[in-house]
Amino acid sequence: MMQSFDLYMPTRLLFGKGRIAELGPAIRNRGKKVLFVTGGNSIRRSGLHDRILGILADEGCSVAELAGVTPNPDISQVRRGVEICRAERIDLVLAAGGGSVLDAAKAVAAGALYPGDPWDLVSGKAPVQGHLPIFTVITLAATGSEFDDGGVISNAETREKLVIEGGLIPEVSIADPEYTLTVPPFQTAAGAADILSHVFEQYFVREGNTLSDGFCEAVMRTVVRNAPVAVADPGNYEARAELLAASSFGCCGLLSIGRTRSPWPCHAIEHELSAWYGITHGAGLAVITPAWMRLSLTRETAARFARYGEAVFGIREGSVEKRAGESIRRTGEFFRSIGLPSRLSEFGITDEHFGEMADHVLATRGDLHDAFVPLGREGILRVLRDSL
Amino acid sequence: MMQSFDLYMPTRLLFGKGRIAELGPAIRNRGKKVLFVTGGNSIRRSGLHDRILGILADEGCSVAELAGVTPNPDISQVRRGVEICRAERIDLVLAAGGGSVLDAAKAVAAGALYPGDPWDLVSGKAPVQGHLPIFTVITLAATGSEFDDGGVISNAETREKLVIEGGLIPEVSIADPEYTLTVPPFQTAAGAADILSHVFEQYFVREGNTLSDGFCEAVMRTVVRNAPVAVADPGNYEARAELLAASSFGCCGLLSIGRTRSPWPCHAIEHELSAWYGITHGAGLAVITPAWMRLSLTRETAARFARYGEAVFGIREGSVEKRAGESIRRTGEFFRSIGLPSRLSEFGITDEHFGEMADHVLATRGDLHDAFVPLGREGILRVLRDSL
Repeated sequence: MMQSFDLYMPTRLLFGKGRIAELGPAIRNRGKKVLFVTGGNSIRRSGLHDRILGILADEGCSVAELAGVTPNPDISQVRRGVEICRAERIDLVLAAGGGSVLDAAKAVAAGALYPGDPWDLVSGKAPVQGHLPIFTVITLAATGSEFDDGGVISNAETREKLVIEGGLIPEVSIADPEYTLTVPPFQTAAGAADILSHVFEQYFVREGNTLSDGFCEAVMRTVVRNAPVAVADPGNYEARAELLAASSFGCCGLLSIGRTRSPWPCHAIEHELSAWYGITHGAGLAVITPAWMRLSLTRETAARFARYGEAVFGIREGSVEKRAGESIRRTGEFFRSIGLPSRLSEFGITDEHFGEMADHVLATRGDLHDAFVPLGREGILRVLRDSL
Repeated sequence: MMQSFDLYMPTRLLFGKGRIAELGPAIRNRGKKVLFVTGGNSIRRSGLHDRILGILADEGCSVAELAGVTPNPDISQVRRGVEICRAERIDLVLAAGGGSVLDAAKAVAAGALYPGDPWDLVSGKAPVQGHLPIFTVITLAATGSEFDDGGVISNAETREKLVIEGGLIPEVSIADPEYTLTVPPFQTAAGAADILSHVFEQYFVREGNTLSDGFCEAVMRTVVRNAPVAVADPGNYEARAELLAASSFGCCGLLSIGRTRSPWPCHAIEHELSAWYGITHGAGLAVITPAWMRLSLTRETAARFARYGEAVFGIREGSVEKRAGESIRRTGEFFRSIGLPSRLSEFGITDEHFGEMADHVLATRGDLHDAFVPLGREGILRVLRDSL
């Protein structure tokens, strides 16, 4: 059954080598006071930081910087950015970095136009009703934040990691694969797992259709082919380019057109692990996903897992049940082959807080009964325990 | 080699049953003087015409109508629309119908802001520098005009059929598959051929990539599976919905990301046939395409045709050359199976004007040397002769 859908992807995506030269024209006439949001030192080492400051100077912009945004960006960093926006009367937000930097920038852009605490916008206490213009330069193939409307913000105090939504869509995003050539193998692999998981969350649903099945499979095949190349040969432009292009479509809506909605169960569960232990999101997903797949394999769902295995791994031999099982096994094997962990114990995580995690999923996301197979509290616990 | 690309698809696509209810909010605050562009009687018979007039009245809009836009819309119809826009000081253009109606509306929207003859904007004598806001309600799965930036306008006087470009992107497009349930089998089939040809023009290029190969194959599989169902069982909502969703992606840029550019040779040649004989675009494409494929099959290109055959028709047996040939044969067979012609002689077309057609392609599109295999004047003539 082809469900109704809205598709709205208004970001202008400028993809390819040297596209940073178009940043100046992109922000021209959008304001002169820029908040420049950045993460660690990689964009300083690569020269991108200086290049952007030069472009902003050429455009006659005054620049305030929110530097040091971390993975799993915390609301305290967002609050700091919002204060700068208010104090400096910032006109637009420009983020350069990975998905965490972009997500923090989005939350800042929304918080700047909200009089209260920006956490209200993440927790859902208040809706996002507007935002400063958002521009991005993406340097990691993973979240797709450069082409979607949301972001993920953590709160260390409350041990929460939640999605801020409300049309936080960049106006222009520059995606130059050369910026990703220096990403280390582990982060490359974790990014690949994140892209794949975005697809899984939309592909493994109760009803799909030929068109979006094919769109999902295109992204999955791209990741499975190119991630091992990029991990083994980090300077391989082609592999990096395919991964970066694929990542942009993860959460923009294209992959779920006409499909039944899913509560994104693996993300729901992994966000708990990240919130408690600060682990790398993609690595957590690589551990959780095969366990979730094993739990979700039933007589009803086997055909879809088998279809996935054929489309992505070329598995064509044996019964539907056999192919479905083999597809799940190959998924775990793929994650291990690119250097990702396969057990929570590798992070030193025990079952100590599983109950609290499951309760928090239920409190913030509901019981995930709309997932591919209904989960509930016991299902969430089973996935976590099976991942130990 | 992943080429650089821009991707910009800012239309808000509202897909599904009953989405027309959202037309009012969509146009609210965008102006009160509406040019309503329509084609033949089908939207009157279906009640859509009255429904839209009711919505516009409820929104307090004054409405002028440009009715009777025909397939292969002529510049004379565009000129008439532009005159209305000037006389009535129209604020926005709303098109309801198939791709021809939408294309005419786009040209009118651009012409309304251009002081000269709107044909200048089609012929390339003057660039499109702005346009009235464009809203669409699409009733035919074919051109994808509801989600792209161009349109095709004919000129009966000069026997030309050319593309108007320049960011003519709808703000909001409503795509309700129920409006397509009454499309007759021949028009359904011709629309399917048009969708497929859009993909072919982007898929059969010198260099592709895993990601956009997969996007293209998703659309092709969707058409090949669903067009026969919709032709045999016109009221089948699922098949209609898949075709309509697939059609929207034909020309929006998604299918060609990172691929080498193509001069769209089948469209270039078919536009000549439509311009001379007024034949249905999709039917012309169904005739031209297999001939163009046969001409384009070489030792270098065989692998891509074989890959296409596997992805779309499941052809897996035999050598690359054998599979490539079989894939082309199956393409022609598919078009015939849904009731489309396979010979120009079926339209009563002879070789009388082939020389003039080839010369006009060369004059307006160049010699198509950038096509999958270079064509030139002799190649164009060979495709035409092989289609007789």
